[in-house]
Amino acid sequence: MKLNIAVLPGDGIGPEVIAQAVKVLKAIAMEFNHVFTFQNALVGASAIEKTGNPLPEETVNICENADAILFGAIGNAAFDLDPYAKIRPEQGLLRLRKSLGLYTNIRPVIAYDDLLNKSSLKKKQIANTNILIYRELTGGIYFGEKKLSDDGNTASDICEYTRFEIERIAHLAFKAAQSRKRKLTLVDKANALESSRLWRRVVQELAPQYPNVNLNFMYMDNAAMELIVNPRQFDVILTENMFGDILSEEASVIVGSIGLLASSSIGDNHCMFEPIHGAYSKAANKGIANPIASILAAAMLLEHFGLDDEAALVREGVDKSLKLHITTPDLNTKYDNITTTKVGDFIEDFINNPDETNLN
Amino acid sequence: MKLNIAVLPGDGIGPEVIAQAVKVLKAIAMEFNHVFTFQNALVGASAIEKTGNPLPEETVNICENADAILFGAIGNAAFDLDPYAKIRPEQGLLRLRKSLGLYTNIRPVIAYDDLLNKSSLKKKQIANTNILIYRELTGGIYFGEKKLSDDGNTASDICEYTRFEIERIAHLAFKAAQSRKRKLTLVDKANALESSRLWRRVVQELAPQYPNVNLNFMYMDNAAMELIVNPRQFDVILTENMFGDILSEEASVIVGSIGLLASSSIGDNHCMFEPIHGAYSKAANKGIANPIASILAAAMLLEHFGLDDEAALVREGVDKSLKLHITTPDLNTKYDNITTTKVGDFIEDFINNPDETNLN
Ligand SMILES: CC(C)[C@H](C(=O)O)[C@@H](O)C(=O)O
Ligand SMILES: CC(C)[C@H](C(=O)O)[C@@H](O)C(=O)O
Repeated sequence: MKLNIAVLPGDGIGPEVIAQAVKVLKAIAMEFNHVFTFQNALVGASAIEKTGNPLPEETVNICENADAILFGAIGNAAFDLDPYAKIRPEQGLLRLRKSLGLYTNIRPVIAYDDLLNKSSLKKKQIANTNILIYRELTGGIYFGEKKLSDDGNTASDICEYTRFEIERIAHLAFKAAQSRKRKLTLVDKANALESSRLWRRVVQELAPQYPNVNLNFMYMDNAAMELIVNPRQFDVILTENMFGDILSEEASVIVGSIGLLASSSIGDNHCMFEPIHGAYSKAANKGIANPIASILAAAMLLEHFGLDDEAALVREGVDKSLKLHITTPDLNTKYDNITTTKVGDFIEDFINNPDETNLN
Repeated sequence: MKLNIAVLPGDGIGPEVIAQAVKVLKAIAMEFNHVFTFQNALVGASAIEKTGNPLPEETVNICENADAILFGAIGNAAFDLDPYAKIRPEQGLLRLRKSLGLYTNIRPVIAYDDLLNKSSLKKKQIANTNILIYRELTGGIYFGEKKLSDDGNTASDICEYTRFEIERIAHLAFKAAQSRKRKLTLVDKANALESSRLWRRVVQELAPQYPNVNLNFMYMDNAAMELIVNPRQFDVILTENMFGDILSEEASVIVGSIGLLASSSIGDNHCMFEPIHGAYSKAANKGIANPIASILAAAMLLEHFGLDDEAALVREGVDKSLKLHITTPDLNTKYDNITTTKVGDFIEDFINNPDETNLN
C-alpha cells in the first residue's frame, strides 16, 4: 500500500515521540513492502515562532493532500502563563480539526495486564477495563462564538450543538458498541444544559435503530466518579467535546500513564492520529518522554487502512517492551537508563526480527 | 444562640439523610443550650408534584427569612429520562442558589485515616489528602442564556463570567489558602475558552495582594488526572461552576464514598449547607443512604456561626461511628444491619453522652 503521511511533530516532547512513531512506521513499510512517504509540517508554538501563525497555510495544504496525519503535541509554558496572548499554539490544533472536519475522536482505554500495578487505582478495580471513548471534536464550547467586552470585564463562550453534529458521531458510537459489548453510555449534563438535553434527545431517537445496544445515560459529574469507582461498567462512552477531553485524560489513570494513550480523529475525508498527552515542555529533550502513545497512534493509523497484521505487530512490540520493562521513567522501575529513543529502537528491532528481540 | 433553620429535604434519599442531620442539630441545641428552630419547605421533584413549581414562592420566603438553610438532594429518574421536560427538579436548586446569591460553594475533601482502605485508590496515594474546593456557584454555563431553535435542531448554552463574579470568590479562596498550606490552584481551560482566560487574568491580578500564597494554574483535563495521580499536591482549588461540579464529585473517590462529602454555599446574606451527593431515588426508603454527608453539612453550619465546639463534637461523633464501623453499606464491611437512622441515632447518643457511647 502507498500512504502519504503528513507528520506534525508540534511542540515540547512532540518531536521526539513522533520520531519514534515514524521509525516504527518505516520498519513496518520495509517489512510488509509498503510505500509510506512522510512530509513534515509546522504547527503550534514552533509554527508561531517561525511563521507567526499556529497553523500555516502550507501545513493545511500538506494535511489536505495527505492520506493520514500523524500529530505530536502543542503548547508551551510561556503561552500557558499569558492569558492575554491573542495568537495561541492550541489554535493550531483546534483549527486543524475543524478545517479537516475531524469530528470524531476515538480514545481507547485499555488496562494492560503488565501495568496493573502502575496505576494509582487498586488492581482489582481496573483489571480487564476496556473502554472506547467517542469524543465529538469539532463542535461545542471550543468552537462557539467567543466574546470579550471592550472593557475586558466580561468574557463568554457559547456551547452549541446541532442535531446533525450529534447524529453523525452517535451512529459511529452505536456501531462500535455493536461490535463490542453492546453497551453505550451517553455522558452529558442534561440536568443543567440545553445542549446536553439535545444530545439526550437525539441519541434516544437513534436508539431503536440499534436494538441490540443497551443505551444508558450518565451526568458528567457522576461519570467522573464512576470512571474511577467502577470502570468496568463502561463499554463505549459517547460524549461532547469538552467532557470527552476531561474524561479521557482522567481515564489515563486506569492505564497507569498518560504516556500510553493514543487517539484517532476521523472525519468524512481525513484522519489524524495522535497521543492524547500534551507538549510537556519541561520534559522536552531529556529523553524521558514516553513514545508508546505515539507508537500506538501509528498502530491506529495502520488499522484505519485495514493493515491489521501490521498494526498487530506494532502492538506486540509495545506489549513486549512493557513486559520486559523497556520503558521510560514514568513506568519503569527496573532500569533507569531507558530513553525515548531506546524504546523506539526496541520496537523497531522487534518489527524487523519479532522472534529474536530481547533486551541486551 | 438562636438559629432559625430552613430545612429543604428535597427528593429521593434527601428526606431520610436530612432527618439525621436535624436530629444531630437538635441534640447539639439541647447539650449547649441553643435555640434552634426548624422550618420545612418543599423543593425539587416533590415540590413539582405538590405545587407544579420546583421552587415555590413560599420556599424562597422561608429561606430568605432563615439564618441558614439545610438542603437535602433533588432530582428523580423520571425527569432524568425525559430530556423534553420543561419544568425540572434541578431548577429548584439552581434558582435557589441564584436568588439567594450563594456564589461560593466550599467542598472539603479530606481522606479519613479510618477509611483509607475503602477508596478505589491505593492507600499511599491518598493518605493525608486535605483539599478545599472553592466552586463558583451562581455564574457560568448553568446560568447563561439557553436556546433551542424552533425546529428543535440546534441547542446552545452560554458560559459567561464577569470580573466581579471572579474577584469575589477569588478573594475568599486566597484567604482560605492563607490560613492553610498557602497554595492556590486555579483550574480552568484557558487554552480553549475566553471565559477561562478572564479567570486566569483576574486571579493573576489579585495575586500580589496575597504575596505569601503560591498561585498556580492547571487545565481542567489535566486536573481531572492529577486529582487522582497526586491529590496531595493540592491545598485550595478555585474553579468555575461546572468544573467545580465535576472535580468535587470526582474527588469523592479519595474519601471512599460520595456519602461522606458535605458542602457549604455562601453568599453575602445567606448560607446553605448540603451533602454533595444526589437524590438516588433508587436507594430511597431502604435505610441504606449514608447520612454522614448531611451530618457533616450540619457541622459546617455550626462552624459558620462560630459554634466550633459544637461542630467539633459532631465531627467526633462522625469519627467514632466510622472507627466503630457504625456505617451504612456503602462503607460498612463489618455489620450488615446498620441503617441510615442507626447512624444518626449513634451520633445523637454520642453528643448526649460523649464518653459512654459504644455499639451495643
Ligand atoms: C490543547 C487542547 C485544546 C486540547 C483539547 O482540549 O482538545 C487537548 O487537551 C486535547 O485533548 O487534545
Ligand atoms: C443537580 C445539579 C444541577 C447540581 C450541579 O451540577 O450543580 C449538582 O450536581 C450539584 O453539584 O449540586
